[in-house]
Amino acid sequence: MTLSPNELAVMFLSLGILLFTAKLFGEIAKKYGQPSVLGEILAGIILGPTVLGFFAPSVTDFLFPAEGLRKVVMDSIATISIVLFLLVAGMEADIGTIRKQGRQVFSIGVSGIAAPFIMGFAAAYFFPGLLGMEAGGEVLFFALFIATALAISALPVIAKTLMDLNYYKSELGMLIVASAIFNDIVGWMMFAAVLSLAGKGDVSHMPIYATIALTLLFTLFMITVMRRLIHKILPWVQAHFSWPEGILAFSLALTMVGAAATEMIGIHAIFGAFLVGLALGDTHHFREKTRTIIEQFVSSFFAPLFFASIGLNVNFITNFDFTVTALFLVIGTIGKVAGCSAAARFSGQGKRESFAIGFAMNARGAMEIILGLVALNFGLISEKVFVALVVLAIVTSVISGPAIKMLLKLKKSFNFRDYLEPKAFVLINNPVDKYRAIEMLCAPLSTVTGIRYDTIRAAVMDRESIMPTGLKNGVAIPHARLRDLKKPVIAAGITSHGIDFGSTDGHPAHCVFLILTPTEDNMAQLEILSGIARTFKEQEFDSKTVRPNNFTEFISMIKSNGSA
Amino acid sequence: MTLSPNELAVMFLSLGILLFTAKLFGEIAKKYGQPSVLGEILAGIILGPTVLGFFAPSVTDFLFPAEGLRKVVMDSIATISIVLFLLVAGMEADIGTIRKQGRQVFSIGVSGIAAPFIMGFAAAYFFPGLLGMEAGGEVLFFALFIATALAISALPVIAKTLMDLNYYKSELGMLIVASAIFNDIVGWMMFAAVLSLAGKGDVSHMPIYATIALTLLFTLFMITVMRRLIHKILPWVQAHFSWPEGILAFSLALTMVGAAATEMIGIHAIFGAFLVGLALGDTHHFREKTRTIIEQFVSSFFAPLFFASIGLNVNFITNFDFTVTALFLVIGTIGKVAGCSAAARFSGQGKRESFAIGFAMNARGAMEIILGLVALNFGLISEKVFVALVVLAIVTSVISGPAIKMLLKLKKSFNFRDYLEPKAFVLINNPVDKYRAIEMLCAPLSTVTGIRYDTIRAAVMDRESIMPTGLKNGVAIPHARLRDLKKPVIAAGITSHGIDFGSTDGHPAHCVFLILTPTEDNMAQLEILSGIARTFKEQEFDSKTVRPNNFTEFISMIKSNGSA
Repeated sequence: MTLSPNELAVMFLSLGILLFTAKLFGEIAKKYGQPSVLGEILAGIILGPTVLGFFAPSVTDFLFPAEGLRKVVMDSIATISIVLFLLVAGMEADIGTIRKQGRQVFSIGVSGIAAPFIMGFAAAYFFPGLLGMEAGGEVLFFALFIATALAISALPVIAKTLMDLNYYKSELGMLIVASAIFNDIVGWMMFAAVLSLAGKGDVSHMPIYATIALTLLFTLFMITVMRRLIHKILPWVQAHFSWPEGILAFSLALTMVGAAATEMIGIHAIFGAFLVGLALGDTHHFREKTRTIIEQFVSSFFAPLFFASIGLNVNFITNFDFTVTALFLVIGTIGKVAGCSAAARFSGQGKRESFAIGFAMNARGAMEIILGLVALNFGLISEKVFVALVVLAIVTSVISGPAIKMLLKLKKSFNFRDYLEPKAFVLINNPVDKYRAIEMLCAPLSTVTGIRYDTIRAAVMDRESIMPTGLKNGVAIPHARLRDLKKPVIAAGITSHGIDFGSTDGHPAHCVFLILTPTEDNMAQLEILSGIARTFKEQEFDSKTVRPNNFTEFISMIKSNGSA
Repeated sequence: MTLSPNELAVMFLSLGILLFTAKLFGEIAKKYGQPSVLGEILAGIILGPTVLGFFAPSVTDFLFPAEGLRKVVMDSIATISIVLFLLVAGMEADIGTIRKQGRQVFSIGVSGIAAPFIMGFAAAYFFPGLLGMEAGGEVLFFALFIATALAISALPVIAKTLMDLNYYKSELGMLIVASAIFNDIVGWMMFAAVLSLAGKGDVSHMPIYATIALTLLFTLFMITVMRRLIHKILPWVQAHFSWPEGILAFSLALTMVGAAATEMIGIHAIFGAFLVGLALGDTHHFREKTRTIIEQFVSSFFAPLFFASIGLNVNFITNFDFTVTALFLVIGTIGKVAGCSAAARFSGQGKRESFAIGFAMNARGAMEIILGLVALNFGLISEKVFVALVVLAIVTSVISGPAIKMLLKLKKSFNFRDYLEPKAFVLINNPVDKYRAIEMLCAPLSTVTGIRYDTIRAAVMDRESIMPTGLKNGVAIPHARLRDLKKPVIAAGITSHGIDFGSTDGHPAHCVFLILTPTEDNMAQLEILSGIARTFKEQEFDSKTVRPNNFTEFISMIKSNGSA
């Protein structure tokens, strides 16, 4: 048995289309401030039976067949993808962060799990039909699963939301992240326990208590013995193997073995991968570079493939049940927000802050979807419940950002790139002095802002006369504040002839940013200046640098220059 | 149809074991100065029918079954792996390098392909049985394939060999690399032509001439239109998508589509991936960081999985044929070395240099194996010929390094880490001054070298009195040359209390290297000092740095610190 050349060809084609569409929609979601997983799932829904399959079933059947060898291969790729995604999730969940924040994290975490769990369990146990259980299901397992599903929080979405709001490194931000990590770890363990109780994935047909005992033992083993073992072994691997390939291969091989172990116990492969990630992420010997390579490859290849593949298997329209979805949303949100904010308020947080913690923890993101999919594959829930869980995941993730923003009165963080004006991108072809260069940049900004050229020019020259504005590495940042300006605006000039802007390292400028900010907006100027400095911190912009020919190439260049 | 939880569990286990064993053997091969692909293949041979299958067939059957769904999935993963490996190979083959070197590259490349091709074709056409053709085969296609297989060179192995010899960036090194790139590209195109001629992978059952025409058209399209298109699109993707995830996903999706295209034409998926790599690698908009992430993930996950999986499918002992193997080795080596060195000599290179070029180009590495595997799967060759090709690949790769070294009288480049003495790693726990610190490091070096403590101490102090040896970033390098020393030796001292070594940036030293080199070996001291400086160029070693507790942790730390 093997894939024919024809099947192989179509497999590569479908992988390419799936990956491309997933990433495209993921990026569009991001553009609108939404988590990229939302777009990735949407891509799958569009390519799958819900949309494309409705309008052109033959195309869907051709690309993503629901039967046969290619289906098996695609499913296996999706499973490997999700295992690697959970490895990354585990790496990100730093146990140390919880330890540092101590008691508050514990109370928010426990209460944030207990409240939705109890509410969810009660609702599902007493009204299983209303919450989507099919006739003939085991009420106890169904209720336990629904309770767990509603109790979950998703660290990656929460962390990303806080980063977007520039709130990640604040004290409250760290508290939320630590609580999310706590919730994440406990949530996964609870789910593993439910699965082992239900005994659905039971490979060796061992008794239920053995599965539960093994699950607990394995978890304990991984976060104690294995964690310390990895801490000891990693330096040895790094010292004797090539770097970073050796350590990467070691981590990935360990992940596969961990996945195999939990799959054999009778719970899902993802738990083993998550635990390996936890253990790996905990030691400082696991360097930043290694982490980055795994994270970025997973989030650009495996994660989009996995999330998009979800939509390929389920019809999201025919399986949409309003009652079930609405109940999940109401019970889940009330339980989670009330549980978390009560605990936060109790431990001394302000009212607004407490609610912000609640809404942040309410985001369920990718975790909820993965949990739902595993339960679906194990036959614990129906497609109807799965679709409701996906909607719950998406809605809670989407509202968390705006809710926190409103409650804490935050402004979205911005990047100086957002204020670069495409119409004020100037290629300076002749050798000019700095005054002439400034004038060349003032002109287009006058057109863009509607402020008179002379006003702009005078303000910038005044500022320039006080102190030269040449930064290091061939960049200059003449700037001024203007009263009539609505929002910051930046012009950029590129020249292969150096312009003397009196920089600190004595190098002439080859890239000149002219920055105008509103007088009253103090922060804007600071953030823009430091953003530019950060971007060119490590990379000299000089006559040897490949010159961008247009605005898009310029943005592409500064974006890929650094972390900015 | 789907994998059962049990099958999934074993699949993850087998992936983990395969990856771990492959990387382990790859690293061992590297330790002995051999290409890592050699170790990776060996790992597969050991885990497959050749060794483990001989001693414990039930274990091999359990982990790597030769039938059934899991076999299909493992084959598909191997195919995806090889496609991504060819993407990287294409990215590395910079067309620009060929252009720069011009005529010489062209003559060495053409003659290096023509000579072994003609010899191989003649031998296989007139004595097909002797070269391993099975009864009933098509002599013409077989002879064309053997000719192509013998004409191939493998850029990655050649580049790696030259880097190990510190010869990559020399003029002759660049000429060899450019010739290898030329050979690589032409070789793959020739193989694609042979495959399309043989019409073995023909998906759409189109006539042979159509396949050939499509192959040529597609190649031409990719290296002209697509290459320029990518150059235009990349900045747009980088400007509008998240970085680097956006560009990574875009590149990988494009690779999948490229792979699908060539598979549909009737040649193998790898050609499309290779061409996408060529087109991507050619634009400067494709940044170093993106390239690194793909390369390192592929070479730590996909490549070892692929190369190890080769050994799982073929028994290398029962299919070993001495005559066929020996003939391949003799014809291949004589043809390649003679062809390349004659052209090199003709274009003005010295005798030794010409032979060095010949032996470098003779290395066939991974390319030969991939080509053999594709031909095997397409039914063009038997397992006997495949095994002979693998041996040819390994032997020519293994001899190329020593041959170049001998011909050009080169020394293997070294890393200062190799001279760090485990017995002379000292944790300095009390605050001391630099003289005391030097003394603490001289003592163990005296034991190790057998040179008197007083002699060492006096030499180092003399040197120290001339000029302080504090580098930037918290590192100091007291050093001396000693007449009686056989080879360089380095002691390292770590302290959490800073020691004033009069560094250029004024920071106290937290890491002290005491370096002793033989008086006559001028280069050694220079290379060691610059190696240390490079390692700590970007990373400060100060009291905040996590202190290594033993020698292994110390090596692990400096290795993962930088490019050194």
